[in-house]
Amino acid sequence: VIPMLQFVNTVVIYLLPAKNGEEQTTQFLLEVVDILLNYVRKTFDRSTKVLDFHHPHQLLEGIEGFNLELSDQPESLEQILVDCRDTLKYGVRTGHPRFFNQLSSGLDIIGLAGEWLTSTANTNMFTYEIAPVFVLMEQITLKKMREMIGWQNGDGDGIFSPGGAISNMYGIMAARYKYFPDVKVKGMSAAPKLILFTSEHSHYSIKKAGAALGFGTDNVILLKCDKRGKVMPSDLEAKIIEAKQKGYVPLYVNATAGTTVYGVFDPIQEIADICDKYNLWLHVDAAWGGGLLMSRKHRHKLNGIERANSVTWNPHKMMGVLLQCSAILVREKGLLQGCNQMCAGYLFQPDKQYDVSYDTGDKAIQCGRHVDIFKFWLMWKAKGTVGFEIQINKCLDLSMYLYTKIKNREGYKMVFDGEPEHTNVCFWFIPPSLRGMPDCADQMEKLHKVAPKLKARMMECGTTMVGYQPQGDKTNFFRMVVSNPAATMSDIDFLIDEIERLGQDL
Amino acid sequence: VIPMLQFVNTVVIYLLPAKNGEEQTTQFLLEVVDILLNYVRKTFDRSTKVLDFHHPHQLLEGIEGFNLELSDQPESLEQILVDCRDTLKYGVRTGHPRFFNQLSSGLDIIGLAGEWLTSTANTNMFTYEIAPVFVLMEQITLKKMREMIGWQNGDGDGIFSPGGAISNMYGIMAARYKYFPDVKVKGMSAAPKLILFTSEHSHYSIKKAGAALGFGTDNVILLKCDKRGKVMPSDLEAKIIEAKQKGYVPLYVNATAGTTVYGVFDPIQEIADICDKYNLWLHVDAAWGGGLLMSRKHRHKLNGIERANSVTWNPHKMMGVLLQCSAILVREKGLLQGCNQMCAGYLFQPDKQYDVSYDTGDKAIQCGRHVDIFKFWLMWKAKGTVGFEIQINKCLDLSMYLYTKIKNREGYKMVFDGEPEHTNVCFWFIPPSLRGMPDCADQMEKLHKVAPKLKARMMECGTTMVGYQPQGDKTNFFRMVVSNPAATMSDIDFLIDEIERLGQDL
Repeated sequence: VIPMLQFVNTVVIYLLPAKNGEEQTTQFLLEVVDILLNYVRKTFDRSTKVLDFHHPHQLLEGIEGFNLELSDQPESLEQILVDCRDTLKYGVRTGHPRFFNQLSSGLDIIGLAGEWLTSTANTNMFTYEIAPVFVLMEQITLKKMREMIGWQNGDGDGIFSPGGAISNMYGIMAARYKYFPDVKVKGMSAAPKLILFTSEHSHYSIKKAGAALGFGTDNVILLKCDKRGKVMPSDLEAKIIEAKQKGYVPLYVNATAGTTVYGVFDPIQEIADICDKYNLWLHVDAAWGGGLLMSRKHRHKLNGIERANSVTWNPHKMMGVLLQCSAILVREKGLLQGCNQMCAGYLFQPDKQYDVSYDTGDKAIQCGRHVDIFKFWLMWKAKGTVGFEIQINKCLDLSMYLYTKIKNREGYKMVFDGEPEHTNVCFWFIPPSLRGMPDCADQMEKLHKVAPKLKARMMECGTTMVGYQPQGDKTNFFRMVVSNPAATMSDIDFLIDEIERLGQDL
Repeated sequence: VIPMLQFVNTVVIYLLPAKNGEEQTTQFLLEVVDILLNYVRKTFDRSTKVLDFHHPHQLLEGIEGFNLELSDQPESLEQILVDCRDTLKYGVRTGHPRFFNQLSSGLDIIGLAGEWLTSTANTNMFTYEIAPVFVLMEQITLKKMREMIGWQNGDGDGIFSPGGAISNMYGIMAARYKYFPDVKVKGMSAAPKLILFTSEHSHYSIKKAGAALGFGTDNVILLKCDKRGKVMPSDLEAKIIEAKQKGYVPLYVNATAGTTVYGVFDPIQEIADICDKYNLWLHVDAAWGGGLLMSRKHRHKLNGIERANSVTWNPHKMMGVLLQCSAILVREKGLLQGCNQMCAGYLFQPDKQYDVSYDTGDKAIQCGRHVDIFKFWLMWKAKGTVGFEIQINKCLDLSMYLYTKIKNREGYKMVFDGEPEHTNVCFWFIPPSLRGMPDCADQMEKLHKVAPKLKARMMECGTTMVGYQPQGDKTNFFRMVVSNPAATMSDIDFLIDEIERLGQDL
């Protein structure tokens, strides 16, 4: 229904703000939207492939005229439209119901609309002055999230940040500022040798933050986990005592609610008891598991999270919000501000005409900050809390379906016993040639190569994608996750069929 | 031309991935696009206001039914469309030709198309695996940027980050890793007491990074500037010597190419000479001024930038790229990787089928990373380097026009002498009641209140926006900037008329 216009030899100078540029602009953007709508429809169509794989050198050489190089001279708008089509053609459909490769997947239509609006508004979160509506939406949404965590009246503080790694970094900064505020002014030499604790199954961003913030990765102590991948509280206590004996000062413990690979929940209550006993900051990294707070059925897995001093929660993971959308929530108000504020005169004028407590930008380690809130707020409006609950429960049901289907199936071996707590299902596929072989080093070595080979075949066929990795002394295995509410049991069946089809002769 | 559908009582569950959801999805998204296109057209229409100002409490109370609160139950799609309209209605049109409030302004149509596509693709920069095209675009664009800086063959490294503050943080981290790599593992205690130097006119993010990374703000030494706001190299050398005498170790110097308020360029060559002499890391914060590298007429202002070890450059400022788009560029390859990598097994498997040197995510302090490159790449394609040059030259010409117009005009006083180097023009408006008064404390106090009052009136009228701030011992003054190529001389004339209209009786 959208009329086509030819843009041959039409260049960008005919678009707005050019005089009489309205029609061309409308036309051009509608052409782009037409490309995008086709992409959206095909993403949900299972006859479409997840990806059309090419090696870097192939794309760099320029496939079918898709030229990535930049030039001094402008291209025609028609060529720009072709570039848009090609960009999507050679990309990966992360919203496809058979894309299981990442914790973030799906393509929520309301979220998409929200993000289109956000980019059209093209503003910045630092002040109420230029983002009045978005600043208020952020405050209201953060308060709701704190209520879901269980902090009284939703009190506390928080901010949206560019991803879970940065949110985790904020948590450590808040802890350091709470106990050793002089570090802000005097540097790490104003504090004793501080120790951070996190489990060996926790996300690598804790170590990354430890390196960046000047603690050093040696002072990020990794705690032992049980076979299931949950941190052992006894090991935490032993290591706290050991650190103290060595003259170090334990500062912070991270408990993970939904580990990246195994998808399990650390025992928050027991960890909180230890943090209370030793007066340590408790951070809960619920980047992946936070979404389960929206589900009355599953939220008990995060029991104790209300005792945390800070929480990372990424709606762009389990809640299907478009990338990026991550929040750091802090129980004590004022710490983020105290820790990060520099009172830049050109942004945070105290003599504005409105209540400047709404200028929240100085809490951030960023100056400019992308508007990540709107798509999330809009999705919450459109679905209600119950809508998120339904989609989260559905994803967890699908994982149970997968688990039940493969746990006793020939050719599969589970990486750990027991039902999935989150949607992660970790397993080895053992091709016929390796079945019945003893558990020797030789078999392990061969098995280690199965997942990468199978994954390569999946990508070359383009039919599905699922992640794999080794973990500790465990050889490469698949980590299946479901966070896309578009996935169904038939997609799980498809994945299993595809693994068996592609792995038969390995 | 877009047919209207009634969405009353239609909820999100009828959209994709719902069965037969294609039509509703297309219809809904086209309705959203219709709202956005209206917004875009009106943004460039000077009869539209820049903003419709309301206080926080007014918006929170819910104006004309615009309810910001979130609920357990879903809203109808019709209400979602109303929410979208209201969100734009009560926001600020940062693309309006009379919005001069921020270094980032404008609404580039190609960039907008690029951002719509980016959100539709909804992927993540950490691996080639799920962002093959975007990863290559990033590499190609960063190389072009390094060529513009003047690094041989465009060699070096870099990454797009969520804003200039984070890019500046990367620069300091790279410096620290280069000279004291043990800090990554052992923390700041592995290094002597390190000192960072930056000018008193530089961006506050340098101090912010100093606090976050464990240096402490006391160890971020502010250098004196001349009247124009340029750092005095002699003060740098004196302070280096002083720090060394005290037993500190100077590490890093930031030179600003385009200061935030005055818009001047530090003398990079002279600073580079001193950095060479004392073996210090030279960072150039060209967040604001980097765009001038695209202009053959103006790039000489950054002479010496090729001697920097790292450079921050925000295309979302002077080049009009949509928010967010900021790059950190590093001359020595491998430092970012060395500094930040943690080799997470679940993302950066070494046994993938493609050349894993394209998995650039481990260079970042983030894990997931938003795709900021596409809109920029697409704009570069559509405009060519020459297109950027034209729009940048135009913005600088407009500033000269403003400067020439007001420098001898009654009621205006320039904050510093001389032509603008960037587009910043800093001035006091002196209302008739204060003209001819002696430069006494009383007059200063009254003058200090003029800019905030005038700004409040501007915002309440909604006709234009321009920033103000004090600086050092200088009382509140206006900082005019132009980064929107949609602005014309008539808009500058309008600003002056409006200041005089609204400030007449102050």
